Amino acid sequence: MRYPNGQKKEYKKANISYGNRGMELEAAINETNEFYRLTKKALIYKKPTPITVSKVNYKSRFEAVITEAYYKTPSTTDYNGVYKGYYIDFEAKETRNKSFPLANIHAHQIEHLKQVIEHKGISFLIISFVKEQEIYLLKTEDLLNITKRKSIPLSYIKEKGYKLEEGYNPRIDYLKIVDQIIEEEA
Amino acid sequence: MRYPNGQKKEYKKANISYGNRGMELEAAINETNEFYRLTKKALIYKKPTPITVSKVNYKSRFEAVITEAYYKTPSTTDYNGVYKGYYIDFEAKETRNKSFPLANIHAHQIEHLKQVIEHKGISFLIISFVKEQEIYLLKTEDLLNITKRKSIPLSYIKEKGYKLEEGYNPRIDYLKIVDQIIEEEA
Repeated sequence: MRYPNGQKKEYKKANISYGNRGMELEAAINETNEFYRLTKKALIYKKPTPITVSKVNYKSRFEAVITEAYYKTPSTTDYNGVYKGYYIDFEAKETRNKSFPLANIHAHQIEHLKQVIEHKGISFLIISFVKEQEIYLLKTEDLLNITKRKSIPLSYIKEKGYKLEEGYNPRIDYLKIVDQIIEEEA
Repeated sequence: MRYPNGQKKEYKKANISYGNRGMELEAAINETNEFYRLTKKALIYKKPTPITVSKVNYKSRFEAVITEAYYKTPSTTDYNGVYKGYYIDFEAKETRNKSFPLANIHAHQIEHLKQVIEHKGISFLIISFVKEQEIYLLKTEDLLNITKRKSIPLSYIKEKGYKLEEGYNPRIDYLKIVDQIIEEEA
C-alpha cells in the first residue's frame, strides 16, 4: 500500500461514511493527475469540497478554527484543468451496481458537463464498476443521450464508452483516451 | 445595493477579518462570472475555499456537521473555466498600497499561473488598487518578469497591464481584454 500508516487508517475510517464512498477511484485519479503534473503532461486538479462555514473561532489574527460547517452540494464537477490547450472537465464515480444509477450524479453536474462542450471544452464521466473491476470513460455527448433513464446499463457504457486500463504510473491513463477523442473530433 | 439586508450585514462583518479582505473585488468577479454563465458567454467559476476537515459529527447517516476544520493554503488559483474553447485561469487580489505586494500571492500560485501558459491556457492576475479605484489585468508573462521584487509598482502595471472599467452588467468585463489578448497572440 502506498499510504503511510496514519493516513491509511484515516482512509479506512472515512470509507465507512456514506459521503466518502468512491474514495478508491478518487485516490487513483488524484495520483494520476499528480503524475501528469510532475511529468508536465497536463495541469488537472480536483476542486476542493465545497463547504459552508457557519462559525469560526479566531484564536489570533492569523489562526482561525472553523467550529461549525456543512457540506454543500457542488455546482460543478470534481476535476478540471488544461491539457494541450484544451479545457478538460470531468466527474468520477464508483458504483457496485451492474448499471450506473443517474441518482449518483446531480442534475446540475450533468448540465455543467453539457455547458462545457457548448463552450468547446472536453468533458466526460469516469465510471468505475467496482464488482466487475472495470473503469470506463463516457463522453458527455453519450451521457446526454441516455439521461431520461434511471440508470445507464453497463452494456451501453461498454458500447459507447472507452475502457480505461489500470496501470502503475499513471494509474488510470485517461489522457490517452482524450487524445483519441481529440483525433476523432478533428 | 444588490444584497438583501441580512447578507449585506454578514458581508460587512466578514470584511473585518484578515482572511476576508478583498471580498469586494471577489463579489464583483463572482457577479461577472454569473453574468457570463447566464448569457452563455463563458463558464468560469470560483473554486471552493480549500478546508481540511478534522472532526465530523454524523447526526444521521445523511446529515454531517463539521465541528473542527482549518483553512488550507490553496495549491492553485481561485478562478478557472472555459471561454471559446480556451482554458482560463486567474487570481484576483485587492491592495490598499500604491504597489502590489508579492507577499499577497503565494509562490506556488505564481508557479501555477506559469504552468497554465506552458499548457497553452490563458492566465493572469486581476489587481484592484482600492484607494486609486483602478483595476488592472496583468498577464502572467508580465508578472513573471518582475517576481524578483517585493512588490509590483502601479506604474509597471499601468504600462504592461490592461485597465478594467467597472460597469453594471457585467461588472468587470475582463473577457473583453481576454479577446484582445487572444487577438494579439494569434
